[in-house]
Amino acid sequence: MPLWTLHCSACDYAQPGDQPAGVCPACGQPLLAQYDAVAVDARAPHWSLWRYAPVLPLAAGETPVTLGEGMTPLADAPSLARQVGVRRLWIKDEGRNPTASFKARGMSAAVTRARALGAAGLVVPTAGNAGAAIAAYAAAAGLPVKVFAPRTTPPAILMTIAALGADLQLIDGHIGDAGKLATAFANESGWMNVSTLREPYRVEGMKTMGYEVVEQLDGRVPDAIVYPTGGGEGTIGIWKALGEMRDWGWLRSDVRMPRMIVAQSSGCAPIVRAFAAGADRAEPWENPVTYAAGLRVPGPLGDRLLLRVLRESAGDAVAVPDDVTRDATRALSTATGIDAAPEGGCALAVVDRMVREGRLSRDAEVVVFNTGSGASYRRESSDLAAEARG
Amino acid sequence: MPLWTLHCSACDYAQPGDQPAGVCPACGQPLLAQYDAVAVDARAPHWSLWRYAPVLPLAAGETPVTLGEGMTPLADAPSLARQVGVRRLWIKDEGRNPTASFKARGMSAAVTRARALGAAGLVVPTAGNAGAAIAAYAAAAGLPVKVFAPRTTPPAILMTIAALGADLQLIDGHIGDAGKLATAFANESGWMNVSTLREPYRVEGMKTMGYEVVEQLDGRVPDAIVYPTGGGEGTIGIWKALGEMRDWGWLRSDVRMPRMIVAQSSGCAPIVRAFAAGADRAEPWENPVTYAAGLRVPGPLGDRLLLRVLRESAGDAVAVPDDVTRDATRALSTATGIDAAPEGGCALAVVDRMVREGRLSRDAEVVVFNTGSGASYRRESSDLAAEARG
Repeated sequence: MPLWTLHCSACDYAQPGDQPAGVCPACGQPLLAQYDAVAVDARAPHWSLWRYAPVLPLAAGETPVTLGEGMTPLADAPSLARQVGVRRLWIKDEGRNPTASFKARGMSAAVTRARALGAAGLVVPTAGNAGAAIAAYAAAAGLPVKVFAPRTTPPAILMTIAALGADLQLIDGHIGDAGKLATAFANESGWMNVSTLREPYRVEGMKTMGYEVVEQLDGRVPDAIVYPTGGGEGTIGIWKALGEMRDWGWLRSDVRMPRMIVAQSSGCAPIVRAFAAGADRAEPWENPVTYAAGLRVPGPLGDRLLLRVLRESAGDAVAVPDDVTRDATRALSTATGIDAAPEGGCALAVVDRMVREGRLSRDAEVVVFNTGSGASYRRESSDLAAEARG
Repeated sequence: MPLWTLHCSACDYAQPGDQPAGVCPACGQPLLAQYDAVAVDARAPHWSLWRYAPVLPLAAGETPVTLGEGMTPLADAPSLARQVGVRRLWIKDEGRNPTASFKARGMSAAVTRARALGAAGLVVPTAGNAGAAIAAYAAAAGLPVKVFAPRTTPPAILMTIAALGADLQLIDGHIGDAGKLATAFANESGWMNVSTLREPYRVEGMKTMGYEVVEQLDGRVPDAIVYPTGGGEGTIGIWKALGEMRDWGWLRSDVRMPRMIVAQSSGCAPIVRAFAAGADRAEPWENPVTYAAGLRVPGPLGDRLLLRVLRESAGDAVAVPDDVTRDATRALSTATGIDAAPEGGCALAVVDRMVREGRLSRDAEVVVFNTGSGASYRRESSDLAAEARG
């Protein structure tokens, strides 16, 4: 008997949690898992996100596929708070996960379910970090995996994918193009497609970021959560977690839910554009260009869900150009000692811009997500390397 | 009133813990900290090695300089156990620390004390990972830092050092040569030299690896702990921790202490050579060459302590060539999903060799330390990158 059911995020379709699942067979939109309220002892001595197993897709007697993902630091950053002009600012450093990004959380959950359902292999399109994560979890599960990635993916990430034994295929184009090849490959091979929101379990791993922030703030909730958003599973997952916590009585009833802020690059900002237009779907972005590889997702399947999160949370969506992101990434790293990824720098730059434009209160307490590690994005051919070589 | 005292590891010198400290002023050997037996609630809800604060060098009311180091996964690796032929094998994945190596633990403790003692700046020689770690903790503490590193240090690590804002000086030669420049710079500038065992606190951070292994094995102790050994602070720290736990009654009185195994590269194996000769000091290794940068330490200051650990623990010291390490690193990564560093691969190869030579029982339960991340060692110019580019 499964502990959860799957519900379509757009129509009335529902199915039991123990059956194979992709997108909604009725309307093609993402499925999301629903749990009954349960008591969770989050203090159990397990050093991974599976501390939250009772509200994760793990059936009785199952063992998760885990590499110790989650339990990432939430660093208080008073000097950055002063720089951008908010009352308090924390950095949640997701670069500390296996293969150095938040993608590990989702893949731990998705691969756990894929193995339980008897998948013969896994296939995924990636803008970068998801490919490294699936390579690691497929190895841990003993499953073969095929990864489709743009040729422009940062070389350090491509090398990690290969080092972990995945079958890596480079393509011309962006993650949307990779996604089409992955779908075709999955249909042909019968391997499971674990692309963002094409199956309901990556989001379940992602939501643990929301549980952790509340736990790390000792039950408090920040005024705003700023998430650098490509495919959207992080943003959607955190909002799902906050809703669950409220519904289950894990939060005080008088708690004000945070504003969810989507940070994107000016070179690929489909959600920012759609939100500004008041739309409930996003048109695909033409010619997506940004060095923050995780943000180069021109047509996310989660567009509807993301725009709904922004409306429900009185949130906002802001884009900044790559040169601003570059400076903010450096500022984040040198002020805190966190080796920030460009996506994290983008999120910090968005806070700065929102405060200056009056879109975020100077009295706000803000959590900024750094979703990966700067090390994954550096290139030996860059100026930085030249500097390092003296 | 300091909670600890400092004792020379070689003579009778001792001093209070709250005074500035380098090596022993009487004989030049490393100082080590001693604590009174205290109760530690290791289950406190702090997600870093500072959970063990009562037995770490932190005075009352002080806040540590932390980036959430420690609490790294201990992965059960049954397929690797079968491959090398031992009963049970775990990988302790230190690549999950800040800046992706075990060096973070020592630097968190050393920089905490340096800041408390009013250091104007920090200086360190490095074979690689220590430089990245000190760059991060200096940034977190708001202190300037000068790093001396061999020009042959892996480029990814050099880029991390620079990205975190450290003043990086590349030198011709090995870490011993860097050490001389660091000492001269420290004398001239007055900045604190936080080189391995030149101050007593890096080892204090390192010892938490020992506490964690016992905690993760639910109070059990493995038969052998295999540590890839360069400067030696990891090996020395873990043995110190086990001794403390025994003395304080944290271990059952009938527990058999583990054999400590030093893993080195055939291209730089001063401890292996000295141990085989029955010496209690190690002669410096001439022309040290290995791509496992952390093992390229030809004349460690901790040689005496390391050889003492090996004798006290009925341990062993074994070297393998780099091509064997390369294969073992790949095997470790693809079998477990852990992105292993060459030092971790070296340690796994040493287990394999010891079993085949009858130096380690097939009935043994073994913990192998992976001290860093494979990502720190990959090069865009390598064959791997060519493979990844397709």
